[in-house]
Amino acid sequence: MEHNFLYMQSGGPTAVINASAYGALSCALNSKEIDHVYAGLYGIEGFMDGKVIEIKKEDRKELSYLLQTPGAAFGSCRKKLKDFRDDPSDYRKIDGMLDRYHISYIAYNGGNDSMDTVYQYGMYLKEEGIRDRFIVGIPKTVDNDLTETDHTPGYGSAAKYIASAFSEIVADSSSYEKGKVNIVELMGRDAGWLTLSSSLADLSGKGPDRIYLPEYPFDIHEFLKDVESVYREKHVAFFAVSEGIADQDGRPIGESGKKDAFGHPQLGGVSSYLASLVSEKGYKVRAIEFNVPQRCDLSCRSKTDVTEALICGEKAVQALLNHESGKMVALKRVSYDPYKIEYVLKDASLIGNKVRYIDPSYYDLKTKKATEAFFSYALPLIEGDVPLQKEHGLPRFFSLKNLSEYGK
Amino acid sequence: MEHNFLYMQSGGPTAVINASAYGALSCALNSKEIDHVYAGLYGIEGFMDGKVIEIKKEDRKELSYLLQTPGAAFGSCRKKLKDFRDDPSDYRKIDGMLDRYHISYIAYNGGNDSMDTVYQYGMYLKEEGIRDRFIVGIPKTVDNDLTETDHTPGYGSAAKYIASAFSEIVADSSSYEKGKVNIVELMGRDAGWLTLSSSLADLSGKGPDRIYLPEYPFDIHEFLKDVESVYREKHVAFFAVSEGIADQDGRPIGESGKKDAFGHPQLGGVSSYLASLVSEKGYKVRAIEFNVPQRCDLSCRSKTDVTEALICGEKAVQALLNHESGKMVALKRVSYDPYKIEYVLKDASLIGNKVRYIDPSYYDLKTKKATEAFFSYALPLIEGDVPLQKEHGLPRFFSLKNLSEYGK
Repeated sequence: MEHNFLYMQSGGPTAVINASAYGALSCALNSKEIDHVYAGLYGIEGFMDGKVIEIKKEDRKELSYLLQTPGAAFGSCRKKLKDFRDDPSDYRKIDGMLDRYHISYIAYNGGNDSMDTVYQYGMYLKEEGIRDRFIVGIPKTVDNDLTETDHTPGYGSAAKYIASAFSEIVADSSSYEKGKVNIVELMGRDAGWLTLSSSLADLSGKGPDRIYLPEYPFDIHEFLKDVESVYREKHVAFFAVSEGIADQDGRPIGESGKKDAFGHPQLGGVSSYLASLVSEKGYKVRAIEFNVPQRCDLSCRSKTDVTEALICGEKAVQALLNHESGKMVALKRVSYDPYKIEYVLKDASLIGNKVRYIDPSYYDLKTKKATEAFFSYALPLIEGDVPLQKEHGLPRFFSLKNLSEYGK
Repeated sequence: MEHNFLYMQSGGPTAVINASAYGALSCALNSKEIDHVYAGLYGIEGFMDGKVIEIKKEDRKELSYLLQTPGAAFGSCRKKLKDFRDDPSDYRKIDGMLDRYHISYIAYNGGNDSMDTVYQYGMYLKEEGIRDRFIVGIPKTVDNDLTETDHTPGYGSAAKYIASAFSEIVADSSSYEKGKVNIVELMGRDAGWLTLSSSLADLSGKGPDRIYLPEYPFDIHEFLKDVESVYREKHVAFFAVSEGIADQDGRPIGESGKKDAFGHPQLGGVSSYLASLVSEKGYKVRAIEFNVPQRCDLSCRSKTDVTEALICGEKAVQALLNHESGKMVALKRVSYDPYKIEYVLKDASLIGNKVRYIDPSYYDLKTKKATEAFFSYALPLIEGDVPLQKEHGLPRFFSLKNLSEYGK
């Protein structure tokens, strides 16, 4: 009887999601208790459709390029499993594939929605009395909004990118005697972690004058007053605005009325909406959306983040071999100075579909800036650089030959 | 009688403009023929207003941080000098300041407009018979559109940033089985150099499917056909679009007076305009503006670019000491393989207000992609990395103490 391992990932990519893939896959390849190592393509949705590749020992050299490859190297999906008691059809399809490939161990890499999948499928295994199959989650999201963990792999690198790019933009845009009002839009639908990380730019040059987070109601009139007072003093202004800011009734600012596949309102464009208001007041204004580079920039990855992402992948495999299931690898901070992390397991039921908002002690509502407490929290997460192996001045990405069979 | 040196910069910053400043200032500090070294603040406009600081030997350590500081460290302006025969008032003000500080040598760092200033002021010195004062230009523009030079300092790093970020975005946005139509807007009002450099992403992962340059008329119907054919084949699509594309009558694309959902004039550029058209056709679409990071990202600076920027600064000082005037330091490529550059002087009259468009052999109108010839041209310019000295995971920027007297 074979005991095989399956790695899958779902949700939005991060700059280090493939470091977790590398950690899980290489740990599985090294394990004597695992016969074959597979990667599902395009998450659980692609896997249900029969899309899977075997990772072999001879792929190891190519596999190491996962450590410097953005995006989801094995594809991703946004599939959510229904409760199996309502509709078991997806579960049957998944079981068919798992049986076919003799898979005992499943590592599922993702964020809030993916941890719901870990919870749902883990619950199904339990209720159906399937005792020889296990699923464990690997945390991943730039949004840093998973509960039960100090932070999530992907956040540190995104925060570092935002801090770096913000300080560069401030330096660039302060070149003229009279500058513009700069409105920088950052990711974060529900939680302000990424937007707050723009404050770290203060360590390099200068950061934002004011920060607006989705956790606090956004008042347009107050914002326009902030613009006026900052610009009057400095003749240039920098505002960091989360894409998810909403008014006191919870209506997203600049809402387009469109919804994504999960029914979340489709955002983006807050900065250009606010810029149009500021422009009407007679200011020169520039809207800057940091956009996708927040989650795929390689140059600003932090060593802490890459290392932890890799270890989370390894820990998931170890947990599976210990027959843990329905759980996620979580990061527990046991010391702030020096920074020290322990890896623990947490029930996915406590994580799936939940959101961890910023700690109120991290944001000063009066100054609209980050507090010292936030700096203490975030600094270790952006520490250290990871050199990129380059050819022709650019990093080489991972690409498995047999992956192309399933290429688009 | 003192012989003093003045450095100034004007126009939009680049990621390496301050490397040229470092080259010029440190070369001047080292020179026995120069008594005092000054930097004008906010270009010629600020200098006319009396804004100038002295750079002293003891500033040398701090000065070295110019090598990793984005923006125009001494400020910039967009002032254009009028012909002195029409209106000599600005020239008189400048002379007053130059006399006051006993300045014989002026290095002016900038692009097309700045080289017009070098030409105009150089012409004024000549016509007025002022024989003991000299002005030389240092080339600088991410746009790479200065005539009489193989390329301009600033371009290589911007091209490398664009190639890196583009390949990362392609990797990120190819994660799903059905992806989006991605429209990436790049700088370049008149010339397509920056937009064409997105093709270099092919060396890392994948680059754009099609590239649209300002040098060629943009046809919206043809573009929508391109979207259809690429998306049908790949289920994801990447288009690189220059901000300066225009239709066959020269009308900029997106200058439509369109308003957003709120009735505010749409501030976003050409990418969001094209995205709205593509969206109307039923595609999922994402507009990405690379924006200011193109000219201020530090992580992707190329060694070639930083080195050449620095040397251009030094060469300007040497030319001034040789009593050259009204000229710009230019880069002449004397060998492609191995890449080899010579520094020469060119009359600013041939450069000011002129635009160098892309070489037609660099772009294939049929495939809408870059040619091999472009790769041969551009590759040496993005070669090599420049390590950043960091504190807390972020680079430390230049800031002179006495600069703050003139702070905003």
